[in-house]
Amino acid sequence: MLATLRDVPAEAEIISHQLLLRGGFIKKVTAGIYAYMPLMWRVLEKVTRIVQEEMNAKGCLQTLLPQLHPAELWERSGRWQGYTAGEGIMFNLKDRQNRELGLGPTHEEVITTIADEILISYKQLPVNLYQIQTKFRDEIRPRFGLMRSREFIMKDGYSFHSNEIELKSTYEEMNDAYKKIFKRCGLKTVAVDADSGAIGGAASQEFMVTANSGEDLILISSDEIYSANQEKAISIPVEAIPLKTKEASLINTPNQKSIKELCLNQGIEPSQIIKVLLLLARIESEKYQPLLISIRGDQELNEVKLVNALTKHLEKSIIDITPLTNDHLNFQGLKSIPFGSLGPDLSDSFLKTAKEWNDKFLRFADYTAGELESFVCGANKKDQHRIGMNWSLLGGVPKQIDIRKAKAGDKCIHDKSQTLKEKRGIEVGHIFQLGCKYSKSLGASFTNEQGVEKPFWMGCYGIGVSRLAQAAVEQSHDENGIIWPLAIAPYEVIIVIANTKDSDQTALGEKIYQELKEQGVDVLLDDRNDRAGSKFKDSDLIGIPWRVVAGRDSSSGKVELFERSSRNSQLIKSETAIDTLLKAISPRKKFF
Amino acid sequence: MLATLRDVPAEAEIISHQLLLRGGFIKKVTAGIYAYMPLMWRVLEKVTRIVQEEMNAKGCLQTLLPQLHPAELWERSGRWQGYTAGEGIMFNLKDRQNRELGLGPTHEEVITTIADEILISYKQLPVNLYQIQTKFRDEIRPRFGLMRSREFIMKDGYSFHSNEIELKSTYEEMNDAYKKIFKRCGLKTVAVDADSGAIGGAASQEFMVTANSGEDLILISSDEIYSANQEKAISIPVEAIPLKTKEASLINTPNQKSIKELCLNQGIEPSQIIKVLLLLARIESEKYQPLLISIRGDQELNEVKLVNALTKHLEKSIIDITPLTNDHLNFQGLKSIPFGSLGPDLSDSFLKTAKEWNDKFLRFADYTAGELESFVCGANKKDQHRIGMNWSLLGGVPKQIDIRKAKAGDKCIHDKSQTLKEKRGIEVGHIFQLGCKYSKSLGASFTNEQGVEKPFWMGCYGIGVSRLAQAAVEQSHDENGIIWPLAIAPYEVIIVIANTKDSDQTALGEKIYQELKEQGVDVLLDDRNDRAGSKFKDSDLIGIPWRVVAGRDSSSGKVELFERSSRNSQLIKSETAIDTLLKAISPRKKFF
Repeated sequence: MLATLRDVPAEAEIISHQLLLRGGFIKKVTAGIYAYMPLMWRVLEKVTRIVQEEMNAKGCLQTLLPQLHPAELWERSGRWQGYTAGEGIMFNLKDRQNRELGLGPTHEEVITTIADEILISYKQLPVNLYQIQTKFRDEIRPRFGLMRSREFIMKDGYSFHSNEIELKSTYEEMNDAYKKIFKRCGLKTVAVDADSGAIGGAASQEFMVTANSGEDLILISSDEIYSANQEKAISIPVEAIPLKTKEASLINTPNQKSIKELCLNQGIEPSQIIKVLLLLARIESEKYQPLLISIRGDQELNEVKLVNALTKHLEKSIIDITPLTNDHLNFQGLKSIPFGSLGPDLSDSFLKTAKEWNDKFLRFADYTAGELESFVCGANKKDQHRIGMNWSLLGGVPKQIDIRKAKAGDKCIHDKSQTLKEKRGIEVGHIFQLGCKYSKSLGASFTNEQGVEKPFWMGCYGIGVSRLAQAAVEQSHDENGIIWPLAIAPYEVIIVIANTKDSDQTALGEKIYQELKEQGVDVLLDDRNDRAGSKFKDSDLIGIPWRVVAGRDSSSGKVELFERSSRNSQLIKSETAIDTLLKAISPRKKFF
Repeated sequence: MLATLRDVPAEAEIISHQLLLRGGFIKKVTAGIYAYMPLMWRVLEKVTRIVQEEMNAKGCLQTLLPQLHPAELWERSGRWQGYTAGEGIMFNLKDRQNRELGLGPTHEEVITTIADEILISYKQLPVNLYQIQTKFRDEIRPRFGLMRSREFIMKDGYSFHSNEIELKSTYEEMNDAYKKIFKRCGLKTVAVDADSGAIGGAASQEFMVTANSGEDLILISSDEIYSANQEKAISIPVEAIPLKTKEASLINTPNQKSIKELCLNQGIEPSQIIKVLLLLARIESEKYQPLLISIRGDQELNEVKLVNALTKHLEKSIIDITPLTNDHLNFQGLKSIPFGSLGPDLSDSFLKTAKEWNDKFLRFADYTAGELESFVCGANKKDQHRIGMNWSLLGGVPKQIDIRKAKAGDKCIHDKSQTLKEKRGIEVGHIFQLGCKYSKSLGASFTNEQGVEKPFWMGCYGIGVSRLAQAAVEQSHDENGIIWPLAIAPYEVIIVIANTKDSDQTALGEKIYQELKEQGVDVLLDDRNDRAGSKFKDSDLIGIPWRVVAGRDSSSGKVELFERSSRNSQLIKSETAIDTLLKAISPRKKFF
């Protein structure tokens, strides 16, 4: 049942999304929600089987957890509000009893509660449970097909341990299994240090399929020893150019609001300026908190690092952080603030009459700002800046933290002679050392060797199964269509009968089809009454690794054997073609 | 990872639910929502594989459709309100764009819309697509574990045809495949005529696992040629006993409101009385409709038949039908009605001033009532009935329809010498000839051989995968626990090392475990440091078909081989035990 499209669907921005739609692999049902059609289902099933085999080989046990989660569970872990209010991504609803339920985007709450019931003693540990299941995220911007969809298939696993050493050992085992899985699926991936985000925990690592269309920015050292998601990456910034002026003075800076305008008009460098950012943090069950952030003028704020630092500093969940605007000020009945001329010493008096906000700024400086000895900064008055300033003149440095985006060109921490380069990546896997975050908040414990109740040490491990399938297409295609890696191709071989009205061609095509099928090859027969050229185009588009054409030479028992990836083609005896195929396919089959 | 419970969980009303909880197969997360634990997952996976094999053997193609459905789709088929308003069972929610979505309980809308896009010509037909997926129903009373849960695993398939003959032929193929599936799963099932319910369509058949705890009542003829769900069953009722009195007269019947009271006091028979029921129908986008139903006094109203008849009569969706009460009347500002003395000729004037209702009764008589020549009925006045009445005196018979519950003891239509007997059943499968219901309402069409656009003929086919797994337990257990049919058992063999401190026992147990594993047997090793008796109890409870015990005779190479179903036990050489197991297991394995 091939149903290919000739035209590039207008909605599809990236090539893999276009090819999956054109090949009839997926059908859009509504924004970010797709049906997996028979060809796609076969790909997903093969990926699933590889995942299952590698997980089972590590002693993991498969389960299936509910998709509907009672709100109480997420309230106990403290994540309900963050996941459902504001920009929260959890779909949620009320049932006929008016009880709140969420549609699971992740399963820490459910599995930890169950583990607490069934795992009583240290003797039962470690346990590693996983499932492969459709998950839900009410994405703000669903896009790129299966890359960022609102329904998607995930493998998620959760391990339970009696101590941190065991957790770390399982984490390494999972790292190993994940690398095997991606390799077996025919993907080139990079493992990178990652931020743990809303999942939380101590350490985490992402597996990225490198591709120009990837949504994530990865930074990799020239020697490839260090690699990290930009959200997480650390580095040594380029050195600041020292400011000559050491004497503090006011300068008039009419209409010079940006770093660029200041540099242009004052003959100074971005690294000599303290950039001051005003932000507003929404904090769970707290007043809004205005933030005053100082960072060196040539550097960018890393919001993920800021959220993490703030969470740690306040020991509260941060719902979101947005730039503070004049609209916000008006709404709070506050006088306007001299944006464009802000200094790190902006007075708290600006906030004095705020209705719903905390009335003091929370002040942080990135290390790049804190370390500057002499700098330019705003004078907190319209069209005025200060030059030759230092932190003593400003009443001291605020709390210094790392909230800077590492970037290409920065020096590496493990070796200063190495610099970071940029790549884009598609996240297909993520492993976390959760520590005791969930077991503590959900009160999940076991009895240790000393007979004492202790919270579990936990890890969690995810693979985006449907995203992985599309990432394979993004990494492996040409101008004619998809080139599936053999291990996850919907079919390994396609037999095309060039002219179905020719009885020799039909007979030979069907014979080869039967023989390959009996040998356990995944083979598809294209015996549609259609032009041969159109059938070749379809088979190129849907990307089956091998094509056998029963054409004009069928009467002499010869077929064309065509390899999709190399586009090599040979006219050979059908028996030879079968032998070649069995040799090419069976060694890989062994993995199954 | 065995985690069995000693006590019977209080919430579980039926034995299969108790055993699955006690065996640690499932864990309740919230009302009607369960986690499938590793042992259960293995059962579900085996059922799934059998379903896939039989479906694929019939040329069906597997897909996976979304679980979130846009409301628009269901509005187009006219089912959104019926499934979400009032007692509707579809969970529904609004996304961040405030668009309504439902959680799919069934997929006619989604698949028909997709079929319309990809199936253009009759040349592509027939096509039979299926999926195996978690579905959702916001049950009014979730209960019996997986039998009536709010999340459950279904196989649902949908076929598309160019004509009715093709549909009927596929329907028969599916009937055949379904029987094979249930047989391979080790279930005893009965195929019964069924009502098509909210799914709709012409013909449908259910597959029932017979069990005393079943929620459905099945009627089967003594010769077993006819079988039907009571909702659908037809029959010839026992004959009425003729009323002697032919002359009409009023009789005083103080406090004689029920059929029983009337018979007792007036010396008449239930079959001589016309029972009159007042009901209120809620109809989609219409006023409420009061119904006046006449039925013979010894018969019961079949509400499913009534809803179907009313739907057909009005050509509208019926949301629900409830008994009309004095509370309803008060609310509408109507005078009270003489309940207990109602006659079929109750005047419409009672409804004259109804605020939100249709002001005329819709009157129906069941054939049993319509056919009575002389009868007793209410006089529409408190404590008065009429005897010797006939329909002419009442102004004629209302529209006659079959709205009677067939019951045990009724004669069969196919052969009057046969009578119906009752059984209870658990529905595990249901196949439907949908006809053109959905293709018409959703505008899904193909081009036929004459080049004319025609709506698809459709069938749909469901199996309750998770319910089937529990039904197997309901049908196959004893006082010690579950007895899994071999084909769907989580493991085929369990090896119990009686005393793990004895090195002979441990060595022999592990050796047998390795050998069976290498032979492809699904084998579990119980080497827990626990009392042997407790391990035997667990293995009985979780119902593994074969148990090998490496106990005291291990030093002489002997083991106990125990068959769960027969409880036969023999002390034999370990090699003999392995041979016996391979013989018992491999013939069934061939199916895979």
